[in-house]
Amino acid sequence: MKTKLKKASGFPRSHCPVANTLDLVGDKWSLLVVRDLLRGRTTYGELLDSPERIPTNILADRLRRLEEAGLIVRSAYHERPARYAHKLTEKGAELGEILLALAQWGKRHIPGTRTYKESAPDSKPGKVVRRSIRKRAKAGRDV
Amino acid sequence: MKTKLKKASGFPRSHCPVANTLDLVGDKWSLLVVRDLLRGRTTYGELLDSPERIPTNILADRLRRLEEAGLIVRSAYHERPARYAHKLTEKGAELGEILLALAQWGKRHIPGTRTYKESAPDSKPGKVVRRSIRKRAKAGRDV
Repeated sequence: MKTKLKKASGFPRSHCPVANTLDLVGDKWSLLVVRDLLRGRTTYGELLDSPERIPTNILADRLRRLEEAGLIVRSAYHERPARYAHKLTEKGAELGEILLALAQWGKRHIPGTRTYKESAPDSKPGKVVRRSIRKRAKAGRDV
Repeated sequence: MKTKLKKASGFPRSHCPVANTLDLVGDKWSLLVVRDLLRGRTTYGELLDSPERIPTNILADRLRRLEEAGLIVRSAYHERPARYAHKLTEKGAELGEILLALAQWGKRHIPGTRTYKESAPDSKPGKVVRRSIRKRAKAGRDV
């Protein structure tokens, strides 16, 4: 009976809002992509340019999932070759509240962590980094 | 140079508090276990008794990781066979803020979701469920 109810509800695991939100963004990468989109990054290359070094295939997969869930929209900014800009929808931008809670907990309980803002002067990418990003972006298109 | 800095920092991915918090609880199950511990569940059997039907091996793994991270402590409440009660530490209980943000986002953006409190009268486990939990708990000890 319980199983039937679950199936009828149409939710993958339960009707709990926490479980369903985790079904969308409960992994190690999705919310880092959202963090970078909130910072104003939009292109594939910009999104690869983070200290966590997200693998190109994971970035492509997460962007696809986030788009399917209506959390981001993409628009072409270049035709040949096709290049896309990604932006958060309102629903996607409201994930910012979750990011804030994650950041606050981390800063309080994991010594040495600091947010992008706090370390901005050091983390501006230089030319060398930019070049390696272009390489990785190219690799991403080949995945 | 960037790589060296990262290594020197001792963090698995970066010094970002979001990334480091996700390294601890960034998956589909950990925060559901924390949710249930916050509701006062403590034993293995009680933690298996949730509508998401967490697989026994995943529950065992997540409890071990949460304990290693200092987010829960366990104490024996029965000797032969050994049975443990799990409780959140202060640091673990403060993950409640993240759960709250996840729940609020889910309720706002995923129609039909409702929290445990809102559906409590229906979700009280009956005898049949209890029996299946005992079976699953036994299976969990065999993993």
